[in-house]
Amino acid sequence: MKTICAISTPYGSGGIAVLRVSGEESIRITDTLFRSRAPLAEAKGGTVHYGRIARDGEVLDEVLCSVFRAPRSFTGEDTVEIACHGSLYIQQTLLQWLIDAGCRAAEPGEFTRRAFMNGKMDLAQAEAVADLIASQSKAEKDLALSQLRGAVSGELNTLRERLLHFTSLVELELDFADHEDLVFADRSELTALADGIETKLQALTDSFRTGNAIRNGISVAIIGAPNTGKSTLLNALLGEQRAIVSDIQGTTRDTIEDTLVMDGILFRLTDTAGIRETDDRLEQMGVERSRKAAGKAQIVVQVDEPSAIGKPSDFSHQQGQTCFSPQQAVIHVINKADLYPAGERSERSEFCRRSGLILISAKNGETEPLRRELVRVAKEGMNPSAVMLSNARHYEAVCRAHEAIERVQQGLQDGLSGELLSMDLQDCLAALGEVTGQITNTEVLNNIFSKFCIGK
Amino acid sequence: MKTICAISTPYGSGGIAVLRVSGEESIRITDTLFRSRAPLAEAKGGTVHYGRIARDGEVLDEVLCSVFRAPRSFTGEDTVEIACHGSLYIQQTLLQWLIDAGCRAAEPGEFTRRAFMNGKMDLAQAEAVADLIASQSKAEKDLALSQLRGAVSGELNTLRERLLHFTSLVELELDFADHEDLVFADRSELTALADGIETKLQALTDSFRTGNAIRNGISVAIIGAPNTGKSTLLNALLGEQRAIVSDIQGTTRDTIEDTLVMDGILFRLTDTAGIRETDDRLEQMGVERSRKAAGKAQIVVQVDEPSAIGKPSDFSHQQGQTCFSPQQAVIHVINKADLYPAGERSERSEFCRRSGLILISAKNGETEPLRRELVRVAKEGMNPSAVMLSNARHYEAVCRAHEAIERVQQGLQDGLSGELLSMDLQDCLAALGEVTGQITNTEVLNNIFSKFCIGK
Repeated sequence: MKTICAISTPYGSGGIAVLRVSGEESIRITDTLFRSRAPLAEAKGGTVHYGRIARDGEVLDEVLCSVFRAPRSFTGEDTVEIACHGSLYIQQTLLQWLIDAGCRAAEPGEFTRRAFMNGKMDLAQAEAVADLIASQSKAEKDLALSQLRGAVSGELNTLRERLLHFTSLVELELDFADHEDLVFADRSELTALADGIETKLQALTDSFRTGNAIRNGISVAIIGAPNTGKSTLLNALLGEQRAIVSDIQGTTRDTIEDTLVMDGILFRLTDTAGIRETDDRLEQMGVERSRKAAGKAQIVVQVDEPSAIGKPSDFSHQQGQTCFSPQQAVIHVINKADLYPAGERSERSEFCRRSGLILISAKNGETEPLRRELVRVAKEGMNPSAVMLSNARHYEAVCRAHEAIERVQQGLQDGLSGELLSMDLQDCLAALGEVTGQITNTEVLNNIFSKFCIGK
Repeated sequence: MKTICAISTPYGSGGIAVLRVSGEESIRITDTLFRSRAPLAEAKGGTVHYGRIARDGEVLDEVLCSVFRAPRSFTGEDTVEIACHGSLYIQQTLLQWLIDAGCRAAEPGEFTRRAFMNGKMDLAQAEAVADLIASQSKAEKDLALSQLRGAVSGELNTLRERLLHFTSLVELELDFADHEDLVFADRSELTALADGIETKLQALTDSFRTGNAIRNGISVAIIGAPNTGKSTLLNALLGEQRAIVSDIQGTTRDTIEDTLVMDGILFRLTDTAGIRETDDRLEQMGVERSRKAAGKAQIVVQVDEPSAIGKPSDFSHQQGQTCFSPQQAVIHVINKADLYPAGERSERSEFCRRSGLILISAKNGETEPLRRELVRVAKEGMNPSAVMLSNARHYEAVCRAHEAIERVQQGLQDGLSGELLSMDLQDCLAALGEVTGQITNTEVLNNIFSKFCIGK
């Protein structure tokens, strides 16, 4: 395979930048540009060497080269990492020189793809590398790292072994099907095995909702009647003047989005236009967007004024259309606590709490009770130690495995022949094999790695 | 000195990022977070180690740690470079963990400052590190790298030695001043020495104009009457639709700036409003800006239409004010070559060439003759092998050294006593010592390194 090279550090100028060269020729090619006391060809793996990059008498930079020898490298191939000064000009010229010297510019994710091809990691782990790089919060990082370290792969491999055992039992029965007096595994034993596998697969598919939320952040829509202080609340949560606020009803027209990390969890907040019946066409469009934002959110924060205590408004339906569903988590907030005299505040707060309402003052930045509630709701159902799916491709494959095992369960109930059961079991195994890459094809791989950044 | 840490790669997310830890405690502190087969404390300098970063049971990332042992490191101190996955979350958390473990967040340029303090490089070289990182073109990179590798420092050290020799001759004369019969160095010999030093210092101060141009780019102003195709020319040179163009006179109002690298040289192009007498207040403001841009440019490109051949317009003065001076390079361009029939073009082009005009067609992207001329003019006076000053601080100090040596020359002529000559010689030595940092103070150092990026 051709030797590849890429800039692996973030785009831009900085103190230093790192270019990665991987492939059989990586050390030889780098040596054609590297001037030092000894060529890299003589270097042991895991060592760093100071020298100059030069060509045709022009010195480009003073660099450090780290040498890794196959198979003890990220890709499993010989690899050189060149740390140069972080000028964009130097980075780009060095890349060009490496290409001129015989490297090919790496495609997105190609280093990780080679790590997969060389058996350094399975496909689910390779995909976790991209998630790890993209992680923005502790929860996301933990999830990606646990997948990189083989949590999902391990779970699937255990399942795979159980399925293979199951299949061998079924096929044993199949091979000796003409010996009608021989029953190697009785059906109740098989049923128990299938049930166990189904339960595990169900748990995995269920985990996707949480895993996906961790990876992509938890969407929160802030909705309510006009002028209840929704934009003020957004600003107070973010700690910055993100949304324009004024006393004029309908100040917010478009939905405004921003992210916030609390307790290691990424929240995607959406501030919306105040919801009310109106004939104004522009305002109607704003209200329609609010409705849609609420419908898509995992958590709906409904904001009311103190006057709503005891007769809370219901925004779950608007203009005859469903705004959000009972499956979505709703946090009911009473804003403008600052309207109460200071003496009354704690009593009011306690009263609200008992009614399932949360009293805050966005204007004064008193949002702590809402923050706590958002984290509590987000964590509900998150089991930090459980294996979680967060990748849509894995989810889709595990769903197919789950459907296949359900057909097996049904088949066992219906007294289907071992031959038919075996076909469904093969489907189930194949689906799981897709996740870890035991079964795959170039198109799938291209699709997966094209989503990576270049240089990894 | 306290151990410091910083993210050294460009800001953002990418494949990998590198954090640098430097100081006596760097290896011990990193070891408190690093989990591997063996602690870094046992590692030799110049080796790379794979492991995990973990704290209180939480694994942050899988990383590679490079260990450098004092004095064989960039800073001259024990240093660890940690290459982690390039997620912003991971980079920032790792930085925080290192700080929690006892490091201090590095100030801008602090690693290079320590390299200077530990005698790994002198001050002029340290300053070249920042220039190298900021370099955007080959010329800039070459200049910074030659300074980093000691070109300016070497030149100044040679001068310093000659000055010390000169001083010793003068002071010898001083010590034995009462022996009126003894003359150790005759005045003509001293004069020759002073003249040689003065010539060198003059060459160095002269080099600043070019060095500064290389470092900051060569400014080019495109000026001319309205509708001569100046904005079309800017777009053609840049190869993109940077400026709005139309047939309407006065389309460009503000000056428009962009950069272009040709033949390794950075050009800063400024497109300007068409210059003409006008009563329109807004247009007058535009013309005023054009005038200023032309006045500041190192190269003025004056654009005319074919009708101007034989009677070129003169924009060096406008509305009674100087627009640009004879010291500035002027390239006179005749645009709209496309107005000529194809058959006539080469004849016209030859005619223009002989008149010192350059015929182009910005509309058709035929700008090659202008590009060649810009590069030729820019390179005029650039001697690639000469030692060049590009740093304003160095320039200012060398100017003071030059003034001091001129006072010495004058003194020799006037038959001044060795005592008085000696004072001026000390001034000259002190000024040169400031450049390389032999003579310096904390305030100067703070000022120099505060302009660095963090992590270098």
